[in-house]
Amino acid sequence: MSELDLHTIYRDYIDCLNRRDWASLGQFVGDDVSHNGRPIGLSGYREMLEKDVRDIPDLRFQIDLLVVEPPFVASRLRFDCSPRSTFLGLDVGGRRVVFAENVFYTFRGGKIANVWSVIDKGAIEAQL
Amino acid sequence: MSELDLHTIYRDYIDCLNRRDWASLGQFVGDDVSHNGRPIGLSGYREMLEKDVRDIPDLRFQIDLLVVEPPFVASRLRFDCSPRSTFLGLDVGGRRVVFAENVFYTFRGGKIANVWSVIDKGAIEAQL
Repeated sequence: MSELDLHTIYRDYIDCLNRRDWASLGQFVGDDVSHNGRPIGLSGYREMLEKDVRDIPDLRFQIDLLVVEPPFVASRLRFDCSPRSTFLGLDVGGRRVVFAENVFYTFRGGKIANVWSVIDKGAIEAQL
Repeated sequence: MSELDLHTIYRDYIDCLNRRDWASLGQFVGDDVSHNGRPIGLSGYREMLEKDVRDIPDLRFQIDLLVVEPPFVASRLRFDCSPRSTFLGLDVGGRRVVFAENVFYTFRGGKIANVWSVIDKGAIEAQL
């Protein structure tokens, strides 16, 4: 798996999320994927994303920084969106918030196998 | 700047922090460093670290994941420590907490020029 491959695969994965193309998610995410140490599998991963989009209809993933060293990808994602009600336990209530997610992925066989994500909750609190 | 160099430099930087060797910090951190968009400079960076160590005497930086693609370094750091009073606005009060920081660095001339850090505040809240 070359670095070029993982750059391209990751950008295609983000495009997939922004298209809400859940049927294609399995091209990028492994069947046995774990998220923050929880083995949720592809179906759980899809459910998590579908819930995110229900809670945040204008959710859009924007890559601010992308660092690739196979089999790892690290990405700083930027969000500028309006969660409808609560988000991360915060009562956002439709207000627009801008925040980052710093996230690490391990790839296996060209697909995401592990995700370690931290969302900047403090930045959201500061905007409420 | 090769990848090997940045791996080594970064590990040496973390060793410097764990030794509290503030006099050597300028070997790793640029004079004009920015932290989360704030241009704090080397002196501000050192003050930030000195305050962290006052607030958390048993603070120790442990690298869980290290992803290098020059000029970028991405690191997932693990902390297992006991902040003395408040931390990130949370009343930790000496309790032991375990949490991660997902952090991106841009290097320039072999030194840290920009830092984009997110600490897992939600994980700490869940332990209080």
